[in-house]
Amino acid sequence: MYPLAVDQPYPRNQWWVAAYASELGRALLARDILGEPVLFYRTENGDPVALAGICPHRSFPLERGRLIGDAVQCGYHGFTFGADGHCQFVPSQKNAPQKSALRRYPLVERGNLVWIWTGQENLSDPSLIPDMEAIGPGNPDWVVEQHPLATVNARYTLLIENLLDLSHVTFIHANTIPGGGKVVEIPVTLAETERSLIVERHGRDLPLNPLIQMQFPDQQGPVHQQFDAEYIGPCVIRTGGAISDAASGVVLGTQNFLHMITPASPTRLHYFVNTARNFGLDNPALTAINLGMGMRIQPEDIDAIETIEAVLQSGAMLPTEISARIDNGALKVRRRLETQILAEMT
Amino acid sequence: MYPLAVDQPYPRNQWWVAAYASELGRALLARDILGEPVLFYRTENGDPVALAGICPHRSFPLERGRLIGDAVQCGYHGFTFGADGHCQFVPSQKNAPQKSALRRYPLVERGNLVWIWTGQENLSDPSLIPDMEAIGPGNPDWVVEQHPLATVNARYTLLIENLLDLSHVTFIHANTIPGGGKVVEIPVTLAETERSLIVERHGRDLPLNPLIQMQFPDQQGPVHQQFDAEYIGPCVIRTGGAISDAASGVVLGTQNFLHMITPASPTRLHYFVNTARNFGLDNPALTAINLGMGMRIQPEDIDAIETIEAVLQSGAMLPTEISARIDNGALKVRRRLETQILAEMT
Amino acid sequence: MYPLAVDQPYPRNQWWVAAYASELGRALLARDILGEPVLFYRTENGDPVALAGICPHRSFPLERGRLIGDAVQCGYHGFTFGADGHCQFVPSQKNAPQKSALRRYPLVERGNLVWIWTGQENLSDPSLIPDMEAIGPGNPDWVVEQHPLATVNARYTLLIENLLDLSHVTFIHANTIPGGGKVVEIPVTLAETERSLIVERHGRDLPLNPLIQMQFPDQQGPVHQQFDAEYIGPCVIRTGGAISDAASGVVLGTQNFLHMITPASPTRLHYFVNTARNFGLDNPALTAINLGMGMRIQPEDIDAIETIEAVLQSGAMLPTEISARIDNGALKVRRRLETQILAEMT
Repeated sequence: MYPLAVDQPYPRNQWWVAAYASELGRALLARDILGEPVLFYRTENGDPVALAGICPHRSFPLERGRLIGDAVQCGYHGFTFGADGHCQFVPSQKNAPQKSALRRYPLVERGNLVWIWTGQENLSDPSLIPDMEAIGPGNPDWVVEQHPLATVNARYTLLIENLLDLSHVTFIHANTIPGGGKVVEIPVTLAETERSLIVERHGRDLPLNPLIQMQFPDQQGPVHQQFDAEYIGPCVIRTGGAISDAASGVVLGTQNFLHMITPASPTRLHYFVNTARNFGLDNPALTAINLGMGMRIQPEDIDAIETIEAVLQSGAMLPTEISARIDNGALKVRRRLETQILAEMT
Repeated sequence: MYPLAVDQPYPRNQWWVAAYASELGRALLARDILGEPVLFYRTENGDPVALAGICPHRSFPLERGRLIGDAVQCGYHGFTFGADGHCQFVPSQKNAPQKSALRRYPLVERGNLVWIWTGQENLSDPSLIPDMEAIGPGNPDWVVEQHPLATVNARYTLLIENLLDLSHVTFIHANTIPGGGKVVEIPVTLAETERSLIVERHGRDLPLNPLIQMQFPDQQGPVHQQFDAEYIGPCVIRTGGAISDAASGVVLGTQNFLHMITPASPTRLHYFVNTARNFGLDNPALTAINLGMGMRIQPEDIDAIETIEAVLQSGAMLPTEISARIDNGALKVRRRLETQILAEMT
Repeated sequence: MYPLAVDQPYPRNQWWVAAYASELGRALLARDILGEPVLFYRTENGDPVALAGICPHRSFPLERGRLIGDAVQCGYHGFTFGADGHCQFVPSQKNAPQKSALRRYPLVERGNLVWIWTGQENLSDPSLIPDMEAIGPGNPDWVVEQHPLATVNARYTLLIENLLDLSHVTFIHANTIPGGGKVVEIPVTLAETERSLIVERHGRDLPLNPLIQMQFPDQQGPVHQQFDAEYIGPCVIRTGGAISDAASGVVLGTQNFLHMITPASPTRLHYFVNTARNFGLDNPALTAINLGMGMRIQPEDIDAIETIEAVLQSGAMLPTEISARIDNGALKVRRRLETQILAEMT
């Protein structure tokens, strides 16, 4: 499926962000994850639960039922399933039928994020969850802002590609990201680490703009600023990076934008955004600025990729795709994703 | 097509309710029946007519034309067809082309219902129409209320299955059917008669509820109440049944709910509801109650099956279906329908 | 594709009206032509340009970009293409990639119409454009009214067939075309010229109606009036014709309705209408009448063919098509179109 050269749209042996921790509680929540309807709630003890979201009796959405203790009762005929997925009650008879369990998905709650494993249960190793503390969330030395979840009518790969080619900042976000108009002019390099692939832009000797002035009130002269786009798997992309004093090279601080991407279906995605900084921890104005910027930047990206999704679905004759050197990172990620998917198919 | 294990969604050699008698008149009425656009009207003598609804000249809907005497004239170029379907007039020439007749569908008007035969014309035996007088409509010893027609975005089999498993009353209609909260607890038995298949629930020694008190003002003690679901072919399902004095066993009266179901397309259906009782014939309050209950109960069932239809059409991965003992009746009906459909395909 | 007996819905080696000349300027205009997104604008010199409308880099619609001189810059990552389609700029590198040109479509501007060639570029002979001056547009001896463009949810062949069978005037336009109620009674003849195929209706000895009275204030007695439908290729149909004094046979003038039809997709079309007359040149009341009639007649035809398109797409079982003698012209045009399409496929 475009832009991948494989039929299967996503890898399944993978952790994804299912929800913000604050979304889960004693109200039933339904959310499509990789094309599967999933039901989320918390037990009376507060443990997060993810079960298949459709009753196997007559396909009624379990979201329309209710919790009885830790069990969920279908709102159509009352079939009732425990938090482990096993059927506990069937109307008008004593025992539940064999093989009537709901699929239960492994979940891990870390900081403000709840991660779901969508593949084979025996492979659900929590150590495969990206180390978010290293880049902000869950780390007490950082301030993290949680932006509202957006569900977007576009295949998740379009958002990955959007984020990995930050030259779009100059065009899509020219009016919303201070200093963004110049991003396209900064040369691109590619770095591959054990953890990730980074498309790097090191802005050098940039004049102070009003945002950096607010972030670092003591800074006088020009700065170096990283405009990274780091692919940490299909579930997380980090953009932003360190800002340093151009004269001395001393790092002033790091501002990360963390983009958690979860396919909802082959052509829809859930988009969780966190911003994180390790400076100005006690400055609420910076938090307000980050939340405000998200409210303006996110819709611009969403509009761009929904527009492309509509083109792809229109059935219009499309030109043969061309790529440039700036696309090397995104093209390598396409190959990584294809490799990950193909490995599951064999 | 789910829930049937055959490709063809419905039997065609079958009578279905096409319309309430009061719907047909000198205004043209278009209605899809089993995926076919059908045009209905009455001749000047009042006879009901059903013809193919699309002009064979250039596919304009005949509903957009007009009646000239007993004939219908297309609103696009004026091709005109008699009540027998034969083409009577073609613009700018004297004779109509050979083989230009519209299909005419056999119709039978009985009481407040107009029945249509959708299969081979030579098999259209009116004696195959269910005996409605035996259960209320057309019988002078009963009072019958006609509820508004609803066209529902769901395959007709979902409504059949809904009605054959009345344990849903406890969940879907808990607040709208007096005494419904206990239905799920009543044991189920299955009865197969020559005419039909009945999923029976005999509620025994039920305390008087306000509705039964109004229906039988002289009744003092507990009652027995039948919660039947009787499949009388894919076109009619009867629910409800007799109410009797628990002490003596004497039948007080019978309250039937008659559900006439007609496929509009593979995923849409027309839903005609009548309520019928053979007691309190001169009590208009009971008629008002029945009409009022229909206005609240029908939307609850429609919402449930439209929700399931949406799940089925969503492309979401569904769990393997499980069934319980209460489903024996519905499963036998699936087999009956499959057998009826397969018999037509050979 | 119905009503043609070939798979390909339209010929491509063909000129079509792409736009009114007044629509093109320094603002980017996107329009689907034969299923292809096309971008239109004018260079700084005023020359009209038509390029493929989707950026070949990451499929963003170029309409969302901006003009820089005569070049268009994509609004996503800044890829920039000249009016000749060649890529001039790629972000973060010096040279554009090989083979990165946009398709450029041949355009010819004549009078108020801009014609586009949708087939092989080497066959784009401007002499194949219909001679509009002969029937009004661009001819100083005629007055021409330009009606608003309508984009219609119907396959273009339905509009061709609508126009070639003017017996519909009696039914669809009975209240909007003076004298139209009698059109169906006028005998039809067929004339094939080198340029075109004409379905002719010569109305004879018609009483003066209020419209003709306004058009020819000196006329006293009955008139002859032509109700022609002339197929001048799939791109233009002329209806209307000469009006003459019935007593002397002297032609009073000609009133043409020119219907320019351009497929937008297999099931959508662009509909440009011009009215043209060679009498009453200095009578603005006639221009107002023509524009007013267009505002009422066009929606009636559009409604009719959108209704038929919906029937065709409904999946409903349709009757076998029948045709009458009035359809000979339309049926010959079907054969012409099929021949034109098949010639391209070999």
